[in-house]
Amino acid sequence: MHDQELLERIRRREKRAIARGLTWIERDQEEGRRLVRSLFPLAGQAHIVGITGAPGVGKSTLVNALTMALRKRGLTVGILAVDPSSPFSGGAILGDRIRMQESVMDPGVFMRSLASRGHLGGLSRATFGAVTLLDAAGFDVVLIETVGAGQSEVEIMQLAQSTMVVLAPGLGDDIQAIKAGILEIGQIFVVNKADREGADHTARAIRGMLTLSLEHPDWFPPIVKTVAEGAQGLDELIAAMTSHRSYLAASGKLASIREGQTAHMLALALEDLVAKAVAGARQTDEWNQLLQRVSSGDEDAVEAAWGILERMVRGRHHGA
Amino acid sequence: MHDQELLERIRRREKRAIARGLTWIERDQEEGRRLVRSLFPLAGQAHIVGITGAPGVGKSTLVNALTMALRKRGLTVGILAVDPSSPFSGGAILGDRIRMQESVMDPGVFMRSLASRGHLGGLSRATFGAVTLLDAAGFDVVLIETVGAGQSEVEIMQLAQSTMVVLAPGLGDDIQAIKAGILEIGQIFVVNKADREGADHTARAIRGMLTLSLEHPDWFPPIVKTVAEGAQGLDELIAAMTSHRSYLAASGKLASIREGQTAHMLALALEDLVAKAVAGARQTDEWNQLLQRVSSGDEDAVEAAWGILERMVRGRHHGA
Repeated sequence: MHDQELLERIRRREKRAIARGLTWIERDQEEGRRLVRSLFPLAGQAHIVGITGAPGVGKSTLVNALTMALRKRGLTVGILAVDPSSPFSGGAILGDRIRMQESVMDPGVFMRSLASRGHLGGLSRATFGAVTLLDAAGFDVVLIETVGAGQSEVEIMQLAQSTMVVLAPGLGDDIQAIKAGILEIGQIFVVNKADREGADHTARAIRGMLTLSLEHPDWFPPIVKTVAEGAQGLDELIAAMTSHRSYLAASGKLASIREGQTAHMLALALEDLVAKAVAGARQTDEWNQLLQRVSSGDEDAVEAAWGILERMVRGRHHGA
Repeated sequence: MHDQELLERIRRREKRAIARGLTWIERDQEEGRRLVRSLFPLAGQAHIVGITGAPGVGKSTLVNALTMALRKRGLTVGILAVDPSSPFSGGAILGDRIRMQESVMDPGVFMRSLASRGHLGGLSRATFGAVTLLDAAGFDVVLIETVGAGQSEVEIMQLAQSTMVVLAPGLGDDIQAIKAGILEIGQIFVVNKADREGADHTARAIRGMLTLSLEHPDWFPPIVKTVAEGAQGLDELIAAMTSHRSYLAASGKLASIREGQTAHMLALALEDLVAKAVAGARQTDEWNQLLQRVSSGDEDAVEAAWGILERMVRGRHHGA
C-alpha cells in the first residue's frame, strides 16, 4: 500500500489501515516516521485523555465503561493501552482483552496496546505517533491508558490534554498519590469502586491534598466517584472531561498544547536528521580518525560535532 | 573552583573534588557537560565492571567483599550504585550505606549513588559522565551496580566492559535470567550464597542455557560460586574479571569499546548543540510562525528542521 492510499484509508477510519499504520509507527523506520509527519497537520481535533493509576484500581474496567458511555453519546473512541514496565515481554500485555471484544465490531472504537520493545524513549515516541494517527483518523476522544505512575508513565501522560488519575478506596492510594508525584499531573481524579467502604474518605483525602498543594488554581481538579462495573458515575466523569476541555480552550491552553506538540514533532525531525548525519559520517574514511582525535583529546567533542553538522548542511546543498 | 583546578584535583583523586564533579554531572548543566568533555580524553584506563542481578541475591554484600579483595591487591576502586527504578525517590537509595563506611577513610575507594531524578535518559547520561570521571580520576576498577534487569538497567550496563550477573540458589533466577534477557548481557555469572542448597543446580542451569544460546563463542562466560558474606570465591571472581579484560584486549574489543564510548561522547555533544539551536530558535520572532506552518502542514517538519540547522551553522560563522 502506498503512503497516500494508506493515509486516505486511515482518514476514513478503516481499521485495517489504522492497524497497519500503527505497526509502521511501532517499528520506527522511515516509513512510519514519514506517516506521522504526514498525519500531524491533520491531527489536533481529538480530545486526548490520559488515564493512569496503580494496578488494582479498576482502570481497564473504567476505560471499558467510559468507552461505552461515550459511544452512546455518538462519540468515536480510540484507545491506546501503554505498558512501559515490561520491556522484555515483547508484546502487548493489556491488549486483545476479552472485555474489549464487544467493541471489535463497532467501527467507532479502535483499541491497541503498545509495549516497550526497545528503549523507553522509543515507547514514548511510538505513543506520540499513535496518538497523532488516531487523532488524524478522526476519533473524537483518544484514551491513553498506562499502568502505575513511574517516570516513563509521567512522560507518556504529557501527551494528553486531560489526565485522569484513578484511585480506589482502601488501597492506600491517597498516600501513594503524593509519593508518586501524581497530584501534579492529574486534572481529574476518579475514586473508582466507590461502592466500597472508605470512598468518601479517599475523596476527602485527595481534596485535602489538592487544596494544600494548589494555591489559587485556575482549574481545581474535580473528584468523581464511579463504580465502573455498574456503569455508575459516568455522566459526571464525562461532564468533568468536557469541562476540562472547555477550560483548556477558553484559557488558550489548548492552543499552547498544540504548539508544544508541534515543537515536539520538530524536535523528532531534528533528531532524525542528526542521526542520519552521524550514520553518514560513520561511512566515511575519516570517521575512525575523527574518533581517534576526540578520544585522545586532540579535538574537542563539540568541535567535532560542529564539523559533522557543517558537512551535513554543505552536503545538502550539493545534492547529497 | 575553576574548571582546570577541579580537573587537576580530580586527577589527584581528592574525594571532595570527585564529589563536586559528580554533583555537577548529576545536575546536567553546561559546567557538568564541559567537565565530562575535558575528562573524556583522560579516561580509558579503568576496568569498568557492571554488576547486576535481582534484589535478594546479595549484590551489595558482593560489591563490598569484592572491593575489599581488590584493595588487598593494591587496586583502587570507584563504585557507582545506580537505581533507575525509583524516579520519585529524589535521592540515593543504595547510597551512604553503613556497610561502606569502613571505606570512607580509605583514599583508594570512592562510592556514590545515582538515582533517576529526571527522565531515564538523564540517568544513563549521568552514569556515562560519572564513569568517565572515576576512570579519568585513575581508579583501577570502576564498579557499576544496578538493581534488577529492566530495560534501563540494560542500557546502563552497556557502559561496562565486563558485566557480571549475580544470582542466588533457590530464587528461581535461573529461569528469570532467560526471561530478563540477562543471558546475553552477562560475561561473568556469579552464583552467590553458594553455601546454600541448590547452588550447584543453579550453576548447571546457567551453564546449560549458555551452551544452548551461545554457538561457537569466543568467550564462554565463567560461572563463579561465591559466599560474599564469608569472603569466599573472590579469588576466582577476580581471576574471571582479569581473564575477561585480557580477552577484550587481545581480541581488539577493548579498543572498539573505547571507540563506541567516543562515538557516544560525540552524539551527546551533537544533542547539546541541537538543543541549543532549538532554544535559540525559540527566542526568535519567527518561531511561532514556524510552528504555525508545521502545525497546518504548510511546511514539512523535516524542512523546518533543516532550516533550524542551517541557521545554526550560518550563525556560528557570523560569530553568534
